Parts: sequence; structure tokens; C-alpha cells
Amino acid sequence: MLLHTIYLIAIVAEAMSGAIMGMRRGMDLFGLCLIGTVTALGGGSIRDVLLGHYPLGWIAHPEYLLFTIGASIATALVARFMHHLRTVFLLVDALGLVAFSVIGCDVARAFDLHPGIVVLAGVMTGVFGGLLRDVLCNQIPLVLQREFYATVALFTGALYVGLLRFEIDPALAPLLAIGAGFLFRLLAMRFHWQLPSFNSDRLRGFD
Amino acid sequence: MLLHTIYLIAIVAEAMSGAIMGMRRGMDLFGLCLIGTVTALGGGSIRDVLLGHYPLGWIAHPEYLLFTIGASIATALVARFMHHLRTVFLLVDALGLVAFSVIGCDVARAFDLHPGIVVLAGVMTGVFGGLLRDVLCNQIPLVLQREFYATVALFTGALYVGLLRFEIDPALAPLLAIGAGFLFRLLAMRFHWQLPSFNSDRLRGFD
Amino acid sequence: MLLHTIYLIAIVAEAMSGAIMGMRRGMDLFGLCLIGTVTALGGGSIRDVLLGHYPLGWIAHPEYLLFTIGASIATALVARFMHHLRTVFLLVDALGLVAFSVIGCDVARAFDLHPGIVVLAGVMTGVFGGLLRDVLCNQIPLVLQREFYATVALFTGALYVGLLRFEIDPALAPLLAIGAGFLFRLLAMRFHWQLPSFNSDRLRGFD
Repeated sequence: MLLHTIYLIAIVAEAMSGAIMGMRRGMDLFGLCLIGTVTALGGGSIRDVLLGHYPLGWIAHPEYLLFTIGASIATALVARFMHHLRTVFLLVDALGLVAFSVIGCDVARAFDLHPGIVVLAGVMTGVFGGLLRDVLCNQIPLVLQREFYATVALFTGALYVGLLRFEIDPALAPLLAIGAGFLFRLLAMRFHWQLPSFNSDRLRGFD
Repeated sequence: MLLHTIYLIAIVAEAMSGAIMGMRRGMDLFGLCLIGTVTALGGGSIRDVLLGHYPLGWIAHPEYLLFTIGASIATALVARFMHHLRTVFLLVDALGLVAFSVIGCDVARAFDLHPGIVVLAGVMTGVFGGLLRDVLCNQIPLVLQREFYATVALFTGALYVGLLRFEIDPALAPLLAIGAGFLFRLLAMRFHWQLPSFNSDRLRGFD
Repeated sequence: MLLHTIYLIAIVAEAMSGAIMGMRRGMDLFGLCLIGTVTALGGGSIRDVLLGHYPLGWIAHPEYLLFTIGASIATALVARFMHHLRTVFLLVDALGLVAFSVIGCDVARAFDLHPGIVVLAGVMTGVFGGLLRDVLCNQIPLVLQREFYATVALFTGALYVGLLRFEIDPALAPLLAIGAGFLFRLLAMRFHWQLPSFNSDRLRGFD
């Protein structure tokens, strides 16, 4: 119940992040609604298609599309005030990331898969929406380049799967994982944590 | 029967639009055939994968590939004369768009889904091929930025689903929807209709 | 057995090619692992999703991910020495291409499909991983532009399917196809064979 509410908040936040990036590139109203929806629901859709988990969430629950399309249009309308909301937006986006990770693990758990694949399903749910958004905006996906974004999804998913393995109350485990993942994301943003990155000029000959 | 003929014309037109964009980017013969085929059959393939509708059209009917590959090669051969054909090309492309929309709705109707999802399946069939083409050509998809393209697909699909709901003869409904959608597209091109677009400098901080 | 060993070598080589391109674009450690894995396993995943072949290879065999992630990390560690290994790398990459083609055909053969679709499944397995890699790196896929890469996959797949049709020993046919395809790729690299490419300024009006 609570998880479902968090999920709806999460898809709204992700749709807004897609619409914001679309507006920065001069997309029209249809473009904003599509990129908002793909950002919000694309990660879960890729996960479902790779797992063979049918019907997809938004096909079984078309009302999700009302949330993502509504959030995209609302973003266009309130864009001039959005810069006051940057902090709120980052917090909601962080909540969305960890909620997506836990929900993605839950979907994969129903398939009786290797725990590593279950965690990976959570990571895909958390990060592939933003990856599709960046591909449609014609830029190298941010998640591949910097920030602890994917690492937070990995941590959250692994913690959640670990808690369930130690037979923590299944009503409690998602909340613990979401809380810890959210805190991790806040710390990573606050202290600018990042993974080592690489850029070797010596590899020029391979292009 | 007539719808099938229109479908074949549509995939030829879409394959040509893919091959033309590929030629503009210096692709080789394989690249032209692949991008032509992806443009023509990619929208329907994404729709089928998202719905879990197997086997995909071109896997059940490999002869569709002969049409798309043939059209791609023909485009390369007659490219020097293509600029005389720009108007014909735009008309056939418009016919393809509306035919794809109606056919996409028909596929989804067989799954007993929410009418909104049926219309959306039509829109995806109409526009996702061109979206994949643009991603492969490394540009922001045109359909997200301008033109009434997606709006025409939405109108055609909604009209078709509405006509069937009002129990119009199922042999007549697709022709009415295709005719009205085609006219809508022509008017949109003639009068340069477009949706509002957005580009807010205030959102810079969100990138 | 031998084919399985060649497959593992192939996914290591493809993961390295992905990680190398990711390093050239300054990706972080997560980015390298993801792009390496997508390059190695993406072609087979697209093939499986299009065919409806579940579960996907890496979901049934999560250990494949250890190979691709390990290869990506190893590439980052030994990058400064990679330029000495360019020839080895090209040879292993060529082996991977032809092995992927044969394996892709085998998967499709189990579905009792048209021989042309079987060959195409081989081509998709061989080239779509690199295509996804290039899309994520925000460049027009190399395979659409130059080199005999896709042509080698097509030749290998067609030869393999042809050999099986002439009832060559099924233990021998894959090795013959891999050997001939590998030789073809080496010759294509050595003599810079390429398909005709096209770039017509006359098509400007179609953009």
C-alpha cells in the first residue's frame, strides 16, 4: 500500500525529470509527454520485456499513464517556477530511484531467479528509464558517466534481497531498504561521491 | 485485403524514408537496408514486444523484409531523381502513418485491452519506426520536436476505436479512419500546424 | 563444448570492445561494466526478445555476467598496455563475430522458422551488441557506415544454414562456418573491403 503510493510519487518525479530534459531541447507537447512517460515507465518496461513478465505494468494499469502524462504537462506549465524547486525535485528523484529498485527486485523474485539477477532487475528498473531519456535526447547517458546513481540502486537492491534472505518481515524489508538507500543517495549527493572514471588517450587506435 | 495492400505500400514508404536519411549520413548498403527495415518494421516490432504479441509480423511473414530491403536498395539507385518525387513521397508517407495507426489498433484489440492502450498501440506503430531511425542516425527524434505527426496518429487511432465502439461496419471503419487521418495530415502539412513547444532557460540547473 | 568455449571468448572480446569505447568517453566504473555487458550480451538479448525465446541466455546463466563484468574491469586496469594488443584484439573480435552468428542461427533453428529469418537471427546476434554500444556512446553505429562487419555475419550465417541443409555433420558444420567466416573477416580487414556507400546532397530537401 505504502509502496504503491511511493511508486506513484516515483513515476511522477521521473516523468518530470524527462519533461524537464525535453523542454531544454525544445520538444513539443507530444514530445514532452512521450519522453516523460518513457523516463518514468521505460526502466520497468525493459525489465519486464527481458524477464518475459507480461502484461507490462502500464498495460495492466493504464492509469499510470495519466500520472506520467499529467506530470509532463504540469512540468511544462510550472517550468518558470521549477528552479525554486530544485532541492525538492532531487529528493523526490532519489526516493523514486530507491523505490524503483525495490519494486524491480519484487517483480524478479516472482520468477525464482538467481539473487544476482533479482538485484540486477532492481538496478535496471532504477536506471534504464533515465538511460532511455538520455538516448532520446541524443546525449551519452549520465548514469554511465558520473554520480553514484546506479551504485545507489545496486546497494538498495542488494540490501533488500539480503534482508529477505535473513527472513526479515517482508512488510518491513522494503521500507528498511528504501530508507537506507535514500540516505545513501543523499550522502552521495552531499559529499559528491563518485566512482573512478577512465579516459585513456592510449586507446585511440581502437575507435 | 485493401488494408493489406495499403500496409505493403506503407512499409515501402517508411523503408524509403529510412534509406534516405541513411544516405544523407553516408551509410553503406547494409546500413541502408537495415535502417530502412528498422524504420518500416520497428514500430510494429516494439508494439508487439510490449504487448507480448508473438510471432512478430516480419518473422511470420519474411516476405515483408523483401519489400523493405528492396525499397532501400531502390532508393539508393534512384536517389538522384528523388528530389523530383518529394511531394509523392510525402503523400505516401502520410498514408503509411495513418495505415500503421489503424493496423496497430487492430493488433491490440485482439488482446482485449483498455481502449486508451489500443489507441496508444496505434500511435506506437505509427511513430516508433521513425523514432528508431532518428536514434540510429544520432539525432533527437523529429517526432518529439515538431510537426503534427504523432497527433495525426493519435487522431486516427482514436477515431478508429471510436467508430468501432459505435458499431460502424468493421469493413468500413478502417477506411473512414484512414481517409480522415490522411486528410488531417495533409491539412497539417499545408498549414504548418504544430503543437506548442517549450524551451526554458530557467531549467538550466536541472541538467 | 568447443562452441561454448568460443562463446565465452567471444563475450569477453565484445565486453572489452564496449569497455574500450566507454573509456574513450570518460565513463565511470559502472558505465564501463554496463556498456561492456550490453555490447557482449545485447545482440543475443534483442534476438531472444524478438523471437520470444525465454529465458534470455544471461538470465538462465548469470555466470555470463561475471565474464562480461570481469572483462570490463580488466580492460580498465590494463588499458595502458592495450595498444600493444590491438592485433590480438581484432582477431578475437572477429572470432566473436562469427561465433555469435552461428550461435544466433542455432537459437532460431529451434523455432522452425524460414531459413532467411534463421540467418537474420545470426546477423542480429553478431552486430546488434555493437550497435547498442554505439547508440549509448552517442554515435552513428559503425556497422551501418563501413567495414564488412555485417557482411561477414551474413556470410557466416548463410553458410552455416546452407551446410546444415546439405546434411553436413551437425558437429562439423559450425566449425566449418566459423572457420570460413573468420577467414573472410581477416581478408576483409587485410584488403579493406567495403560495401558501396552513399551520400547524396540531392536528398537535402527530405530531412
